[in-house]
Amino acid sequence: MAGIVECVPNVSEGRRADAIDRMAAAIGGVQGVRLLDRTSDVDHNRSVFTFAGPPEAVESAAHALVDAAAREIDMRAHRGEHPRLGAVDVVPFVPLAGTSMEDCVGIAHRFGRAVAERHGLPVYFYARAASRPERVRLPDIRKPQYEGLQELMATTHAPDAGPPRVHPTLGALVTGARPPLIAFNIELDTTDVKLAKRIAKEIRESSGGLPAVQALGFGLTDPPRAQVSMNLLDASVTSLARVWREVEERARAAGVGLLRGELIGLMPLDAALQVADDALRLGGLPRDRIIEAHFIE
Amino acid sequence: MAGIVECVPNVSEGRRADAIDRMAAAIGGVQGVRLLDRTSDVDHNRSVFTFAGPPEAVESAAHALVDAAAREIDMRAHRGEHPRLGAVDVVPFVPLAGTSMEDCVGIAHRFGRAVAERHGLPVYFYARAASRPERVRLPDIRKPQYEGLQELMATTHAPDAGPPRVHPTLGALVTGARPPLIAFNIELDTTDVKLAKRIAKEIRESSGGLPAVQALGFGLTDPPRAQVSMNLLDASVTSLARVWREVEERARAAGVGLLRGELIGLMPLDAALQVADDALRLGGLPRDRIIEAHFIE
Repeated sequence: MAGIVECVPNVSEGRRADAIDRMAAAIGGVQGVRLLDRTSDVDHNRSVFTFAGPPEAVESAAHALVDAAAREIDMRAHRGEHPRLGAVDVVPFVPLAGTSMEDCVGIAHRFGRAVAERHGLPVYFYARAASRPERVRLPDIRKPQYEGLQELMATTHAPDAGPPRVHPTLGALVTGARPPLIAFNIELDTTDVKLAKRIAKEIRESSGGLPAVQALGFGLTDPPRAQVSMNLLDASVTSLARVWREVEERARAAGVGLLRGELIGLMPLDAALQVADDALRLGGLPRDRIIEAHFIE
Repeated sequence: MAGIVECVPNVSEGRRADAIDRMAAAIGGVQGVRLLDRTSDVDHNRSVFTFAGPPEAVESAAHALVDAAAREIDMRAHRGEHPRLGAVDVVPFVPLAGTSMEDCVGIAHRFGRAVAERHGLPVYFYARAASRPERVRLPDIRKPQYEGLQELMATTHAPDAGPPRVHPTLGALVTGARPPLIAFNIELDTTDVKLAKRIAKEIRESSGGLPAVQALGFGLTDPPRAQVSMNLLDASVTSLARVWREVEERARAAGVGLLRGELIGLMPLDAALQVADDALRLGGLPRDRIIEAHFIE
């Protein structure tokens, strides 16, 4: 299979730097895979790895991570503020250039079944790979947490793969497929945090705004400035250009301009091309119009 | 060397489809090279191939093209409207993602010397690879044409490589390095061709406008509409976003809006990222912020 897949696993270890390093090395040691980011949170006692590469390499690296986590993490001893079911808590596969959501659903299902078999672990499929509606959202699956999972094993939490027994050290694992997530902030030319909060409320999906958009209003301190902070959960549904315009319109109605945008982390090629397409009114800027895109893997 | 180089050779054959096919096949037969476009003009009796790939592969493909042209083209019999010095008339190398102008100057010099040696052909270096100021512009070098070149060989047209003798069937070859060229048109929401011509005149470099911009005003017929047609010769000097704004401003002053942009052919990744950066006011969107850009070759 050609093309690129991204994988963003969350593991239940955010404190022991040496253990986190060994898990990162297990991922980065797979030929063809690039570890693009790693972030650890001490309070959550949790780390997030972002890596990408050709589909087969990414799937191998996800297995290598589970093997490493099996050596490093014992869920019986894990404490942290963030809800979790297991040592490798969630493993989302994300389609990028040249791969489809169907490809990633296939990878998640195959990876989940193989992990269940290899480690004797209960596995759940979520998001686009979910087997039923109540398993689409991660918080719903994760609700009982590691400590309360065993007693729901025969009822609401029968696993999609693997035995109906929580693994003592690894717990359970959730895997699935989802679109790329883009973290994007806009700074307003004002210190009026109330305006930022109002705009955020108006544009976020949860209060009836734009689909696949999460948004919060914040006050930045240095320099003092109001910010709308967003996650775009599916840029093919609501694009960066669209949220920029929607924020701009509402700010302008209050007599306020936009100062700058801020991209957190990386973004997929298609999201950037969408913005260029919109700005130049090209009526479409597919990847094959970009010379270098012909040379992605 | 990692990264991607583009090559856009012009050959003096635009009529015999079988000969053009064999030259295209010679390029496309080199492992790693992708032939992205080919255009032939019967009146000019000339074809343009656009191909790209890793530097070594692109250099090999350029040699393969000269070898094929040596079998297909006899300059003694060539007639056509477009000025030309030889069978493989000009071979520009263009830096794309992961390669620099210096890399391409090096490739042009090595390629030119090797071709001169292999085929006993006079070779000239132009654009960024020029050896002297009067060889920067292609029209200056090409002025005597194939028929008049021999008599200037000892004076203005002493070759940069190869013997001071025009090759009977291959003529001479010009090679060099230049930035990627972007062909981009903007349709105005008017049939006023005079306005398009005035805007074009104001923004083009030759009449004191934007650096590295060529522009002409045209009237389209179906539907009738005025168009500003542009070549951006170096988008790092004047970007697509800049020309869009400059055209928009002037059209707006005449009470006219912009309908749409039109990209002719392909564009380099950096040019698209520049537009996205500008639209979202990111203050920079380097390639490494694009996930898939980590997987270009």
